[in-house]
Amino acid sequence: MKAAVFLLLTLLVPAYHTGAQCITDNAVDLKVQAAISSIVSSTLAKAKLLCQNVSARGALVSCPAGYKPTACACGMACGSWDIRSDSTCHCQCGGIDWTAARCCKIGLE
Amino acid sequence: MKAAVFLLLTLLVPAYHTGAQCITDNAVDLKVQAAISSIVSSTLAKAKLLCQNVSARGALVSCPAGYKPTACACGMACGSWDIRSDSTCHCQCGGIDWTAARCCKIGLE
Amino acid sequence: MKAAVFLLLTLLVPAYHTGAQCITDNAVDLKVQAAISSIVSSTLAKAKLLCQNVSARGALVSCPAGYKPTACACGMACGSWDIRSDSTCHCQCGGIDWTAARCCKIGLE
Repeated sequence: MKAAVFLLLTLLVPAYHTGAQCITDNAVDLKVQAAISSIVSSTLAKAKLLCQNVSARGALVSCPAGYKPTACACGMACGSWDIRSDSTCHCQCGGIDWTAARCCKIGLE
Repeated sequence: MKAAVFLLLTLLVPAYHTGAQCITDNAVDLKVQAAISSIVSSTLAKAKLLCQNVSARGALVSCPAGYKPTACACGMACGSWDIRSDSTCHCQCGGIDWTAARCCKIGLE
Repeated sequence: MKAAVFLLLTLLVPAYHTGAQCITDNAVDLKVQAAISSIVSSTLAKAKLLCQNVSARGALVSCPAGYKPTACACGMACGSWDIRSDSTCHCQCGGIDWTAARCCKIGLE
């Protein structure tokens, strides 16, 4: 009789084990995939361009830390400018009175 | 005999239970981590700057909803501009004939 | 006696099975949610605007593949420009000597 019970258990338990693994695997797959598709859309929907303007007297102005200049504007109607060190707007016309930078980063809105 | 079966079960089931939890935990960890690394790269790969140009007569032009101006361009060779309310390009030179905005957002391409 | 063991197993195993499913479900939920909140913040924290400047003689200059122009700058103090095909800066003033593009994309820093 004891042998019969052991036999029963050694037959039942591994079969149950394998089945449970599969059920768990599939449940995890579905859950992870659902979570992933929801995060893809919600993450991208929250990611926005955050921009601000900074300006200063003279021919140079820098963006705040974390922001990158996307464009520069200059006084005296000047449209000749360049960006130095990926952070500073420089207006090239002589005797420029003011310089402005459009500064943007990616962030949550 | 009944007592023996109970004893067997009370010994076997908790041991199996603990083992199954661990196996499940590890399987979930691996699955979630694999899913995460794949989503990080695929999400970022899909996120693009989507940009368009808008222009209008006069000294003002606004970006469409959801877009942010990254720069302005002006008629009459004018390079002096500013951005109002985070959405509208304004060319500062007198009697300006046209104003254009470069408008961008983050989106899926 | 054999019948008693069978009865015992058919009562015990499904009950255990249901409980294990619930425990697994909850564990997966918690793990996935923790993984998701950590990925949301870390993914967005890694996503940056990557920008570079390109310039060329004449009135036209294009951004490298994968980059979008966010603004153009022109020689001769000219602030009148437009962007063609979502990729090329064009300075409009006559006899322009140089044209520059500010080119950006979303990437990992």
